[in-house]
Order: sequence, then C-alpha cells, then structure tokens
Amino acid sequence: MKNFSIAKSRRMRSTPYTSRIEKQGVTAYTIYNHMLLPAAFGSIEDSYYHLKEHVQVWDVAAERQVEISGKDSAKLVQLMTCRDLSKSKFGRCYYCPIIDDSGNLVNDPVVLKLAEDKWWISIADSDVIFFAKGLASGHKFDVKIIEPIVDIIAIQGPKSFSLMEKVFGKKITELKFFGFDYFDFEGIKHLIARSGWSKQGGFEVYVQNTKSGQKLYDYLFEVGKVFNVKPGCPNLIERIESGLLSYGNDFDNNDNPLECGFDQYVSLDSEVNFLGKEKLKKIKSEGIEKKLMGVKIEVKEISLPSSKNIYDENNTLIGELRSATYSPQFKQVIGIAMIKKPFWKSSQSFKIEINNNTFNGKVCDLPFI
Amino acid sequence: MKNFSIAKSRRMRSTPYTSRIEKQGVTAYTIYNHMLLPAAFGSIEDSYYHLKEHVQVWDVAAERQVEISGKDSAKLVQLMTCRDLSKSKFGRCYYCPIIDDSGNLVNDPVVLKLAEDKWWISIADSDVIFFAKGLASGHKFDVKIIEPIVDIIAIQGPKSFSLMEKVFGKKITELKFFGFDYFDFEGIKHLIARSGWSKQGGFEVYVQNTKSGQKLYDYLFEVGKVFNVKPGCPNLIERIESGLLSYGNDFDNNDNPLECGFDQYVSLDSEVNFLGKEKLKKIKSEGIEKKLMGVKIEVKEISLPSSKNIYDENNTLIGELRSATYSPQFKQVIGIAMIKKPFWKSSQSFKIEINNNTFNGKVCDLPFI
Repeated sequence: MKNFSIAKSRRMRSTPYTSRIEKQGVTAYTIYNHMLLPAAFGSIEDSYYHLKEHVQVWDVAAERQVEISGKDSAKLVQLMTCRDLSKSKFGRCYYCPIIDDSGNLVNDPVVLKLAEDKWWISIADSDVIFFAKGLASGHKFDVKIIEPIVDIIAIQGPKSFSLMEKVFGKKITELKFFGFDYFDFEGIKHLIARSGWSKQGGFEVYVQNTKSGQKLYDYLFEVGKVFNVKPGCPNLIERIESGLLSYGNDFDNNDNPLECGFDQYVSLDSEVNFLGKEKLKKIKSEGIEKKLMGVKIEVKEISLPSSKNIYDENNTLIGELRSATYSPQFKQVIGIAMIKKPFWKSSQSFKIEINNNTFNGKVCDLPFI
Repeated sequence: MKNFSIAKSRRMRSTPYTSRIEKQGVTAYTIYNHMLLPAAFGSIEDSYYHLKEHVQVWDVAAERQVEISGKDSAKLVQLMTCRDLSKSKFGRCYYCPIIDDSGNLVNDPVVLKLAEDKWWISIADSDVIFFAKGLASGHKFDVKIIEPIVDIIAIQGPKSFSLMEKVFGKKITELKFFGFDYFDFEGIKHLIARSGWSKQGGFEVYVQNTKSGQKLYDYLFEVGKVFNVKPGCPNLIERIESGLLSYGNDFDNNDNPLECGFDQYVSLDSEVNFLGKEKLKKIKSEGIEKKLMGVKIEVKEISLPSSKNIYDENNTLIGELRSATYSPQFKQVIGIAMIKKPFWKSSQSFKIEINNNTFNGKVCDLPFI
C-alpha cells in the first residue's frame, strides 16, 4: 500500500509525549479521539515480537476520559451502559459497552469509579462526551461533564511487571487485572491500572500532572534498559491475534452488543435502567441476524483500508471483513468479520478478492487463541 | 516539519472517491468525521494559486450528514442551535452553531431543511449524531436520527460556474449563494448547493447515488479540461486568508459563539428555545473574556501541529495561536488566535517563539481581506 502523509493541525492535536516519540522514531500515526496515536515505529512485525518478549512504553494519550461528576452521575453512567454497575466499586475498571436507544453501540470504554459521585469513562474513538451532554441536558441531570487533562502512558509486555516494580515498588505487582490504585512517583500521585490494549500484560498510568508524566516517561526508558524497553503502540498483529475488538474497525453504531459477543456485559436480567434495554431484550428473544467472527485466509499479506465483502462458493454475500493482518503465529492472514446468519458457523468456507486475486478462507471462533 | 505516514483502517474509512484521488496524486490526508479527507496534492501553495484562478474538484465526503426526521425533528434541530430557524425554508442552507447547555460550541454545521420534518446537518469534525441522540432520548422526542449515505463532491474556484453550467445547464448558475436545489445528471437527481469551504465560489453536490456520483466525478474532469480543472481539497492558505474558521482548529467545546464572532447567528432576542440560551444571555451582558482575532507575524514560514502561546512585550500571556500559514497575499505568516481581554485590540503587538527564534506579530481584525 502506498504511503500518504498525515497533515497535522490543532484539530488532531499532539500529546505531551509527541515530541518524545518523534525523537524515538515513530513512523506512522492514526487519529483517535481527535488526537495523534502512534501506529508504527518501523516494522509492525518486529514490534510485535518485541512486545511479546520484552516491555514497551506507549503514548496512548488519545484514550481520552469523559469525567462525569455530581449528584446524578451514577444514574447517567448507568443509563449509558448495558452493564450492571450497581455493585461497582472504587479500585476496579469495568469494560462497559455504551448503548443508544436503538440498542446499538456508541463506544466500548473502560469505566473507572473514582468516588460515589465521580466517574471516568476511558473511551474508544467516538465523542461520548456529546452523548453524555445530550442525555444529561434532556434528563435535567445534576452532573458536570468535562474532558479532564489525563494523558495515559501504557507499559505493556511480559517484562512490564519488573519494570513497574523497579519504579513504583513491590506494591504495584499486587494490583489485580483491571484493578487500579494511586502510586507515587517523585512525590506525585498517579492513578495506575493493571490494564492496556494488549494481552501481554501491563499497566496504564492515567497522567494528570503532565510534567511528572513526562519525567516518568523518560525515567521508564532510563531504568528499563535492562529489560530491553522500547517505544511502541497498540500493535495490529498482536491485537487481532488476541481478539481485542476495536470500535470503528470491528463494530460501530450500526451494530449491537449481542452481535459483537459482548453478552456477558449485557445485563438484561438486572434491575438497572439503561438505554436500549427493551430493544436488546427483543433482539435477544428473536435472535441476532449477524455476528462478529474470526476468519483465516490462505494468503500471506493483506492491507485493509476499508471493509471488504466475502462470499460463499455460490457467490452469496455472507459478510464483511473489517480488520485483518498477517499472523506470524498462524502463518496466514487472520481477521475479524461481521458474518450474516446462517453463515457464522465455524469452518464455513468463503472467497475473498485481494489485489485482483481470489483467495479461500474459513470462518472460526473468537478469540483465535 | 518531518512527514509521518497515516495508518489506514476501517475506523478512518475511505470515501467513494479515494481510489480516484490516489490515482490523481493526493499526497497527504487529514481525518475528519472518522473519514479520509485529502489535505494536499503536492504543493499547497501551487494548489492555492490554481484554486484562485481556475476550478478544482474536491472529495469532501468527510463532511458527513446527520439526518433528523420525524414529528419532533424541527424542535430538536432548533434546540441544538442558537440560530433562529423558525423562518427557515426549503432550498436554503443555514450556517448554525451547535451549542451545549453551558453555551459552548459542539460544532458549526450548515443545516439544510429538506422538508418540514426532515433535516440534514452537514457537520464539521465532531460526532453531532451522538449529541442529537442523547437529547432526543432525554426529551423523548419522536425523531429518527441516522447518518445517511451522502458523499459530497465540491466544485470550487472562479471557473466552477462555467464547468457546472456545462454539466447541469444554465439553471444551475441561477442558484443564489447558500441556495440548493435538485439537478439531473444522466437521469439521476442530485441535491446541489451553492456553497463550499473556500471563498472562490462554487458548489457542493450531496451525492446519494454513489455510482452516479463517481461517474459525475470522472465527467467533471473530462469536460473540465478546457477550464484547467484539477483535483484539490480545502486549502489551508486560502481558508485562512478568507477567514474561514475551522471547528477543532480555531475553536472547540471550550469556546462559546460570542467569543468566535458568530454574533449574527446567536438569536438571543428570538422567541425560540435552544440550549445554553440563558447562559449566553448572561455571558453577553457580562461581556466575553477572550475573542478570536487575526494575527500577522513577521516571518515567512510556520508549521503549527498544535496551538502556541503568544506574549506581549512584558511577557504576559495574551493568547494562543490556533491556525497559521504563510500568506502569499500578505507576504508573511497570518493566523487565527484566541486573544485574552483586553489584548484583542487591533494592532496589539506580541511575541511568539517559532523553532527557537522569537518573532514579532500584530493582532488584527477578521476577516483579513
């Protein structure tokens, strides 16, 4: 695929770490929440192997927060997500599909309860803040909704535990998966969660004190040398192999959470009130018409700037491929596709055209591994 | 400024014209409403001179529509904008700041009334659809809100009138500025407005029939040869010289319409009900604290990937530069800056650091010309 430059401007703003990653050799960007998100430091495959063996520090400031505080904040946050948050507590992260009135997805953030009346919604790439503001205004909720200054640094990879222990002490290794707490760096408290957009283990530092965050960024590279630390970013190969879904890529506002396999986060039997609940109950009882599935394709290379139709042996359209990559683990292209009923059975074969050639593929279950 | 590649994916999707502009030599993209928007075909300055003399065809499919239809559609659209739409009619485009409860800007779209109960909001770069969905849900409005398949082609430049007459006949030259109507191309009706994101004159074709739009795109280049037609895109130099403001660049959700000089679109004395009305009345009576102004800087070159602080002679922070370009017309850098009270007087001098050198500048009124 030909390379095109990205035209920078304030509308797709830099992060506090941009000047650092540009010195460190970032080669490609994507835009996420109107902000620069690094997409490659040279070869994505090299970075994939490194991530699975060592530790990387990622500028993921583009994972913005929507902060909802005030008397009605819990009510508003619950209204927006189909996951029952009635028993949620401080110190835990919750993966929460955000749903509209039609039962379709608006985003799939991680929600952090900072206090009984203060929440952060750590969003994927859509303007959840305006959905929240519209709902709050319509319902006359007593809430304050802002995008706070929070610029996340992620530390990912198997050696992230040793690196973080070196910086923050033994206590940080006791954080459970999707737990968070405050940790001290040179006298400044940082909220740190055991989370991140890879399945290689790691942490996310929710940096509110920008200067301290920049110091921490540099310090991680200083003390991380012994762990072969490198700059990195969410890795296309690793995230697809791991079955990590991406809003806007694998699903969007035309899809519902049951079609995306999010059933365990759809609390239809709960007492709580959320948008689209009746709609989703109806969909569940009638059954879904399409479903996100894995695919494996007998080809060694693909680039996918948009979705691509896939057909069965009778040339019937059976779905569309939405994300794909060559997988070193499976030694072929794997991807994530929205497959129509009744073609979503595992091992359904299909055809796909790539660069004017037709290749064979098979549907499979997610996750791949 | 160093060049970085853009990492393409379905999340920042292609348009129906992307394969065409890539054959035609697009070199840079920006992302706008989660879609590819061309930002350069080689030199921006060459393209600027061409645009001012000839005619260009632009892929601006990234100008997405939010379609609001149904019984309460007029009520919802009016609630979202501070401009009085009670006398709006079919066939006219309306520049309408979208405002939240705090009186701040959410977007600055053009609104088209397609029927008494059907509207298109032709948006700048933010997810207005989720604001509309949130409000509709909270107010229990009887509306349907979708992003329809509409992929705009813009025809811009002084020779756009001759080119469009050649394709659509004499009648299209009778369209008044910001008027729209339906015109026939090979048996397919297209909504065409006399509008576009330049001050060089032109039209926007709201393409709903994708195949016909692609044919039209090609045909415009075929019959446009005699007018020296070229592919192009919104031009940074031309838009700043013309004082065309950009949501996300020059203003955002932290600014209100009175700070942006949108006073004529803020109908505080009207009878209509819109979000933030009381708040804006209060702000108006108390006076604003910052204001968008033009600036001229004694330097020949600038690149501005983020905003930049500017200071007076006593090193007092007086504002921030948000967009800037070298202007061939003024033979220096000009830009758009948010200036604090009381420094927004025309001819206020300031200092700015660019590439480790300090340059002098002066505040001026907008538009520049």
